Amino acid sequence: PGGGRGGAPRGPQEERIYLDHNATTPLAPEVAQALGDAMRQAWGNPSSCHPAGRKAKELISGARESLARMVGARPEDIVFMSGGTEANNMVIHTARRHFCDSQAGLGDGGGMPHFVTSSVEHDSVRLPLEQLVTESLAEATFVPVSSQSGRVEVDDVLAAIRTTTCLVSIMLANNETGVIMPVAELSQRIRALNQRRAAEGLPRILVHTDAAQMIGKGRVDVQELGVDYLTIVGHKFYGPRIGALYVRGPGTATPLHPMLFGGGQERSFRPGTENTPMIAGLGQAAELVSKSWEAYEAHMRDVRDYLEARLEASFGKQRIHFNSHFTGSKRLCNTSNFSILGPGLQGRRVLSRCKTLLASVGAACHSEKGDRPSSVLLSCGIPYDVAQNALRLSVGRDTTRADVDLVVQDLVLAVAQLDQDQAP
Amino acid sequence: PGGGRGGAPRGPQEERIYLDHNATTPLAPEVAQALGDAMRQAWGNPSSCHPAGRKAKELISGARESLARMVGARPEDIVFMSGGTEANNMVIHTARRHFCDSQAGLGDGGGMPHFVTSSVEHDSVRLPLEQLVTESLAEATFVPVSSQSGRVEVDDVLAAIRTTTCLVSIMLANNETGVIMPVAELSQRIRALNQRRAAEGLPRILVHTDAAQMIGKGRVDVQELGVDYLTIVGHKFYGPRIGALYVRGPGTATPLHPMLFGGGQERSFRPGTENTPMIAGLGQAAELVSKSWEAYEAHMRDVRDYLEARLEASFGKQRIHFNSHFTGSKRLCNTSNFSILGPGLQGRRVLSRCKTLLASVGAACHSEKGDRPSSVLLSCGIPYDVAQNALRLSVGRDTTRADVDLVVQDLVLAVAQLDQDQAP
Repeated sequence: PGGGRGGAPRGPQEERIYLDHNATTPLAPEVAQALGDAMRQAWGNPSSCHPAGRKAKELISGARESLARMVGARPEDIVFMSGGTEANNMVIHTARRHFCDSQAGLGDGGGMPHFVTSSVEHDSVRLPLEQLVTESLAEATFVPVSSQSGRVEVDDVLAAIRTTTCLVSIMLANNETGVIMPVAELSQRIRALNQRRAAEGLPRILVHTDAAQMIGKGRVDVQELGVDYLTIVGHKFYGPRIGALYVRGPGTATPLHPMLFGGGQERSFRPGTENTPMIAGLGQAAELVSKSWEAYEAHMRDVRDYLEARLEASFGKQRIHFNSHFTGSKRLCNTSNFSILGPGLQGRRVLSRCKTLLASVGAACHSEKGDRPSSVLLSCGIPYDVAQNALRLSVGRDTTRADVDLVVQDLVLAVAQLDQDQAP
Repeated sequence: PGGGRGGAPRGPQEERIYLDHNATTPLAPEVAQALGDAMRQAWGNPSSCHPAGRKAKELISGARESLARMVGARPEDIVFMSGGTEANNMVIHTARRHFCDSQAGLGDGGGMPHFVTSSVEHDSVRLPLEQLVTESLAEATFVPVSSQSGRVEVDDVLAAIRTTTCLVSIMLANNETGVIMPVAELSQRIRALNQRRAAEGLPRILVHTDAAQMIGKGRVDVQELGVDYLTIVGHKFYGPRIGALYVRGPGTATPLHPMLFGGGQERSFRPGTENTPMIAGLGQAAELVSKSWEAYEAHMRDVRDYLEARLEASFGKQRIHFNSHFTGSKRLCNTSNFSILGPGLQGRRVLSRCKTLLASVGAACHSEKGDRPSSVLLSCGIPYDVAQNALRLSVGRDTTRADVDLVVQDLVLAVAQLDQDQAP
């Protein structure tokens, strides 16, 4: 049986199959082991001078190296923090701060900082920007994704840039559709633009990508991506519920302004007594990704493609709409976003009839939204009634083709029941 | 053997005794168990609708109740966050924000917010205030502690209050001296003052206490204390490396302004996918405190008092100076801050010669400061040459009198060696 089911509650006669790995993943056994070992053996305060502290400090240092290796960075470019939400907020805080500091000498104050992002970002990018706009502390452009490609297009992002633009933040892969965004090309274009801007005395545009959904599912290399900041979220790649931020030369080549002040940990970029066991677990999760991401990717792609083939075979081509099959766009290996067409088959209704499948209709953070369709899907040009029926299934490292067979059977039964309810 | 030694590294022939429980504590076995169980059984995303998520949500809800019970609060008054540093920063952020919002309607803008705190606060209170002052965003008064009492005196705090004061933040017990501050009396006086201020149209003064060092070592009841905010730090009471903030009616009776924006977790006060296992562990740690704090306190006080008696007997009354024996002041049950008087006996030198004792010369966060004496001790009126020799020993739940005997023997040998080095 798939390890992905390990933690899902089971009734006496039912076995649930967890296909919601984009919401969160279980801990890999190696990660749980590393975390438990650190909990028992390295509980000292990493700032303490005595051996109990030194042991903890060494573990943290090793984990930093593991994270750096995973994304092709230097250890000093990794700053541990509580999670992706904090990392994303901190990048936005930094860019605004850096803009204001660098414009402080100018006569008219230099104007208000401007941010460019996409219309399909995670709430931890969208909401801090909306908050700054509400408070008249910044301006923001939310570039829509193309309904042809499901991606935010490089030209559209560049067209949104103003003289006052301080940050471009585009996620590496969307959590709902799995569509992969053209971040490397974008960074390259912005680097060239920044050279022209420097000559004109315009502020540098910083580039950030939230890689939460991509790590462990595909190649993530900060050199290739060319970004200044990259968000790392442990619980999306079988690691613990903390995160880290990659910063290309924090405080030197790239600005980084703390949001918290305190005991000086993480070179004062992110103070607070370090969560040693979680950091050790994150390091172990990164090691697994470095070693095996290609195998993970190949396996998940195989199972996901099998899932989509089985869905099409079971429901018929006419009744299944894949919401993230965009010509020419790459997508995450593990994600299938689809709608079973027909009245009364809203995603939530279908899931509630399933006896085996554990999945979602979109981002877990939006689970309270009722039957309103996902704004991400609507942004991608999916019609309202199709989007209402959307299901997001995301397979994991341990999902098998046998799991898929059970899940598709479960969906077929659920839909048959709902069809019957609809019958006059 | 004491469980407090469980995680300290041991050489083949040496056994170390950890007396640095104010820096951090190991996880209680029950906490490690709860944390491990949650890791395995409740790894779902608490925001997910399916059973894997619901299980996690229930655990978090139970932990919230446990924390509330521990401090005499309602569950809705507890907001989980990454640690004490975040909690303290958030209170300061909130108070400033609240002041600015409430003064926004006034003609002259209402002036700059003013903070009152003590001169012996943790860096996570002192530094964010200094940062605001540096940025000309706030004014702050750091009230010195009395050299008679080692406490910050209520009258001194009240004398520092201005019409623009928005927050008074005084720690419940000092981490280095263990001196307990008169927070209940202070809150009472400020409550009376706030009534008069309201009549005059002056802004309300919010009251915060950082209870990091007090929880698990003495009675902590938010009703008795009468504070608006109270910081809870798991790793100081055998819990994990996260924390929580008590807020008396967050967003209703008492303002609370988020520093982060994202997926709506913790009622949007503190978004980010919840760290379920750590939260479950924190809840278990709180249960232990609720059930047994009086026994913990009695035990630690006994062992600590025995330590001080043994020190005095071994070194002689003339050679030992207890740095936190202030007449009339209460102090933490577990902390002994003392100096062994004489040349060449700086705290760090003494500790480096110890073969058994693991302890510190002050706050772990300041471990890089070399031989400069603790500013907290200097603030309390301890002479420079005495403060230079200071050692902070903090006993734990599992420390025994037998441990104390070994530690004192260790110190006697270390000092004898150092005396010999000094001999001509």
